[in-house]
Amino acid sequence: MEGHGYGADKVALARRMSRVEGQVRGIAKMIDDDRYCIDILTQVSAVTKALESVALTLLEDHLAHCVAGAIAEGGDGAEAKVKEAADAVRRLVRS
Amino acid sequence: MEGHGYGADKVALARRMSRVEGQVRGIAKMIDDDRYCIDILTQVSAVTKALESVALTLLEDHLAHCVAGAIAEGGDGAEAKVKEAADAVRRLVRS
Amino acid sequence: MEGHGYGADKVALARRMSRVEGQVRGIAKMIDDDRYCIDILTQVSAVTKALESVALTLLEDHLAHCVAGAIAEGGDGAEAKVKEAADAVRRLVRS
Amino acid sequence: MEGHGYGADKVALARRMSRVEGQVRGIAKMIDDDRYCIDILTQVSAVTKALESVALTLLEDHLAHCVAGAIAEGGDGAEAKVKEAADAVRRLVRS
Repeated sequence: MEGHGYGADKVALARRMSRVEGQVRGIAKMIDDDRYCIDILTQVSAVTKALESVALTLLEDHLAHCVAGAIAEGGDGAEAKVKEAADAVRRLVRS
Repeated sequence: MEGHGYGADKVALARRMSRVEGQVRGIAKMIDDDRYCIDILTQVSAVTKALESVALTLLEDHLAHCVAGAIAEGGDGAEAKVKEAADAVRRLVRS
Repeated sequence: MEGHGYGADKVALARRMSRVEGQVRGIAKMIDDDRYCIDILTQVSAVTKALESVALTLLEDHLAHCVAGAIAEGGDGAEAKVKEAADAVRRLVRS
Repeated sequence: MEGHGYGADKVALARRMSRVEGQVRGIAKMIDDDRYCIDILTQVSAVTKALESVALTLLEDHLAHCVAGAIAEGGDGAEAKVKEAADAVRRLVRS
């Protein structure tokens, strides 16, 4: 069994995280440059949305591969994987 | 195959929704009574949290039964179920 | 000074809460009728969105009237009102 | 009137954004290293929470200084500032 489920999306996810890193650096520079609060808040909301989108891709890949794999194998592992995925959703929704 | 996955939680979910209904009626009454904005906002946040908690229970039950069942059966149904669950998570996170 | 800031939106807010109450009752009935998990989750997300929208109206009215009034009056009351509003935003964002 | 309201928190905000940048780079590395989906999701949730906390600080500072300043000056500027702040809250809650 492979260690993760995002193989097919790995390149795209790496690219999105690299864009997020640029946006985060941009926000740090806006603060350094004394930019207007609301303009910074708009950028923070954009980064939060981008991260949520990364998380949703990871989660869908995880369900489709890791969780599905554990269920197909059967046994206690399946139940644990479902519980773990549900907990991750809980953290996402709460964050 | 049964039509849903929340059988074991059905009574608890019904009780929680009945409590949410009471809270919603309470908020309507607070507005009617011209109560202070912040006190109403506190109640709205409490109801939103309660609904999120109901949603997370439904989602976990759905993964553990409906999605797991479809995966165990195999075939195209499994993939569709995973996609459908991921879309539901997307709506939850965005709402 | 009046006790709240949503005077102009009171009728609309009451109507929206009454619609939310109907939706919540609808969800309770869906659970009672053993409806499909995902269909219930869709309704829960819709209610959460409707409540958020009510909260955002209340918050905007609160800023425009209660907070603005306290600032116009000056003194320590203004700072306390800003802090209180920021805390309400925190609860909304976290919920 | 200065252009923003986060003067007193500027150093702390810069430090928090620099920590967020490190966390974002850490997530990119986790993806590059084929780390387990759920561990990455946990980190994404942590970054989202950290950004939300930055946003809430910016918003509170903005209310306490920029919005309060506009209200104290009076006129149409005050109403526009309140509307602008409410829209920023809307984007935060929706993101």
